[in-house]
Amino acid sequence: MRMYDIIKKKRDGEELSTEEIDFFVHGVTDGSIPDYQISALCMAIYFQGMTVRETCDFTYAVRDSGEKLDASKIQGIRVDKHSTGGVGDKTSLVVAPIVAALGIKVAKMSGRGLGHTGGTVDKLEAIKGFETTLCDEKFVAQVNSIGLAIVGQSKQFAPADKKLYALRDVTATVDSMPLIAASIMGKKLAADDDCIVLDVKTGSGSFMKTVEKSKELARLMVDIGKNAGKKMTALITNMDRPLGRAIGNSLEVIEAVETLNGRGPEDLTDVSLTLAGHMLSLAGKGTVEECIAMARETIQSGAALQKFVETVRAQGGDASLIEHPETFEKAKYSYAVTAPRSGYIASADTESYGVASLLLGAGRNTAEDEIDYAAGILLTKKTGDYVQKGEEIATLFANDESLFAASAEKLLAATEISVEPPQDEPLIYGIVK
Amino acid sequence: MRMYDIIKKKRDGEELSTEEIDFFVHGVTDGSIPDYQISALCMAIYFQGMTVRETCDFTYAVRDSGEKLDASKIQGIRVDKHSTGGVGDKTSLVVAPIVAALGIKVAKMSGRGLGHTGGTVDKLEAIKGFETTLCDEKFVAQVNSIGLAIVGQSKQFAPADKKLYALRDVTATVDSMPLIAASIMGKKLAADDDCIVLDVKTGSGSFMKTVEKSKELARLMVDIGKNAGKKMTALITNMDRPLGRAIGNSLEVIEAVETLNGRGPEDLTDVSLTLAGHMLSLAGKGTVEECIAMARETIQSGAALQKFVETVRAQGGDASLIEHPETFEKAKYSYAVTAPRSGYIASADTESYGVASLLLGAGRNTAEDEIDYAAGILLTKKTGDYVQKGEEIATLFANDESLFAASAEKLLAATEISVEPPQDEPLIYGIVK
Repeated sequence: MRMYDIIKKKRDGEELSTEEIDFFVHGVTDGSIPDYQISALCMAIYFQGMTVRETCDFTYAVRDSGEKLDASKIQGIRVDKHSTGGVGDKTSLVVAPIVAALGIKVAKMSGRGLGHTGGTVDKLEAIKGFETTLCDEKFVAQVNSIGLAIVGQSKQFAPADKKLYALRDVTATVDSMPLIAASIMGKKLAADDDCIVLDVKTGSGSFMKTVEKSKELARLMVDIGKNAGKKMTALITNMDRPLGRAIGNSLEVIEAVETLNGRGPEDLTDVSLTLAGHMLSLAGKGTVEECIAMARETIQSGAALQKFVETVRAQGGDASLIEHPETFEKAKYSYAVTAPRSGYIASADTESYGVASLLLGAGRNTAEDEIDYAAGILLTKKTGDYVQKGEEIATLFANDESLFAASAEKLLAATEISVEPPQDEPLIYGIVK
Repeated sequence: MRMYDIIKKKRDGEELSTEEIDFFVHGVTDGSIPDYQISALCMAIYFQGMTVRETCDFTYAVRDSGEKLDASKIQGIRVDKHSTGGVGDKTSLVVAPIVAALGIKVAKMSGRGLGHTGGTVDKLEAIKGFETTLCDEKFVAQVNSIGLAIVGQSKQFAPADKKLYALRDVTATVDSMPLIAASIMGKKLAADDDCIVLDVKTGSGSFMKTVEKSKELARLMVDIGKNAGKKMTALITNMDRPLGRAIGNSLEVIEAVETLNGRGPEDLTDVSLTLAGHMLSLAGKGTVEECIAMARETIQSGAALQKFVETVRAQGGDASLIEHPETFEKAKYSYAVTAPRSGYIASADTESYGVASLLLGAGRNTAEDEIDYAAGILLTKKTGDYVQKGEEIATLFANDESLFAASAEKLLAATEISVEPPQDEPLIYGIVK
């Protein structure tokens, strides 16, 4: 088999065989295929696409390219949730304790933030002492004893994806539906959960800018998972505005704790309960409606918050911060962004909001950047709210005052104020099963 | 400027600016752009194409990527002919002496053969002692004194093309009209002739398999050349059958000499006179008809043959071989390929004929292979001829008898014999000015 023939076949719009796809992914993993042939094939796939069969084969080859979690030692049903990434998306911190409080195992492997999107691992590390690297034995033992553990993705998972993504990132071949689906699902399937609920974000703050594209991606990923024997559901949720009011690591942990206390923002609470309901339902706890009611009950009873406290303690974190979130270290400086004129906030370019937070030190431009956990943004007003000229839209937090100007400018430029109120947008656009 | 943005722009179907194309070609030449980004852009160009303006800019950047011939020291008008490559195409050996015999300078830089196509430099090296590497001074001096010199392409010409072609060759991005045009014309323009006649081959033995594609390529190359201030003409000629009857290096030299003696095959004679006529006409010697008549006269008078003898002598070759072509060293063995049944030769896959010759040792699979100059094929019958079962179709020549079986099999498999005679095909499909 020659890589040249595989590139030419895909270039000419033909379907690659399972053997050809395996040959490619093996060659990526062991380094036997040169980068220039990999990038040429990725560009050909960008233009010619892949059938569902090809995408499944590709995903499974990526999954099989490295180590997997040996989940056989975890007792009970394991369920995972995966978000395609957004701004202010702290749902994992809310959803995982709810599900675990109801006896379903959550053995969660999360990512770090990059660019405008945040990552669960960074948020947890805002909790003093929280250890996001556990050996497999400790990880499995904690899931068995508490029902929940959250760690960073192990480096040995799906190495083919790591290599492919690095190349796609510099050759303008990221935006390809089958390549995106295989990248996400290849890693997810290596964790070998029984049930997976996908949160496919859509809109200005997400990777997929339209509902149609998001539904297409959701359909593809659900089919890939089902084909591998997993129970799958995907929600298409709104990322045309940040979820909740907090952007930035410790600010988001505080908001998640508020939500677990029943005092969270309505949008964050609703999306979290819906995700948890679908996770529980897939795990066999009842209908989605019954499961959402059960999820709400874990908040009212304090069981979910208690589960989060337990988890933080088990992973070495300072649990008193969760019990008293007002004790989180604050940023030294704050800055009020005010409305330049009166009117309704008609739209907010959410990706730019993420960048505004990054400019305060809350995120990373490159994988090596250090994060300021206290930095970030609290939104006083959101899309649909009316503001008077001079009224506060948002408060910026940073440990370096010189960062405010560029961040405020970015945020204001991304905020459209008009005389007419915007049309209401749904929080959840659809469910793909 | 970032290469990523250039790839993305082309991927999205936008037109690249002159600056962006220059940035790319510079980066290819100095090695600052990694191979994986070069191949990704080539694949994006394969799918999205390039405008004529982009292709011109690209060609000129390739031309300017290395050294050029300093043609200022050559006196008189310089004209060149370039063929896109075929099987049995020895027209350069006929055309160049004709044109030089009429006082027009031919400072010819030719290529070597690869795969099924032959190369003029290899053919000339079949003449004992012929030196195809001359320093610039000697090359210019010979053109000034004799009017003709033929050498191999210097390595310092258009290095960007060398790098690009090597990558395109292994990433299935060779078949792209603008990339082909820029590759050919970038090198041609570096030689800085006043007039260029292109011989765009079409059909089973050539790179372009259809007349439409060949015309498109011809139009593009003519426009690129004109835009650079050159006088340009392109002929679209038939390569659905080999030109003449000889395939293989010394066999082709002998056939070229026969043609210069006025005893050549009709197709080779006609194409050579037409090419020479257009070259002379571009150089201002008269109308194409007048020039073809003048060209024919150089054969009848022996002036063209004399010019070839002079050139061979000047470049150290054994001119007695040209005067007595029957003294060329013969292959040790010959083998008659006979017709498996009676009928008309309806078609011949010419590329396969080239491969059959290569299998006898007459060509190269890789640039490092050595050539057996005496090996090759003489076609007894060509497309349109009637053959009796058992009658000879072709004679194979080799210095190793064990090579005949595979070559004969290849040749027979490529030859279709049927009861009906095939439709006549034109020798010249069109002229693009």
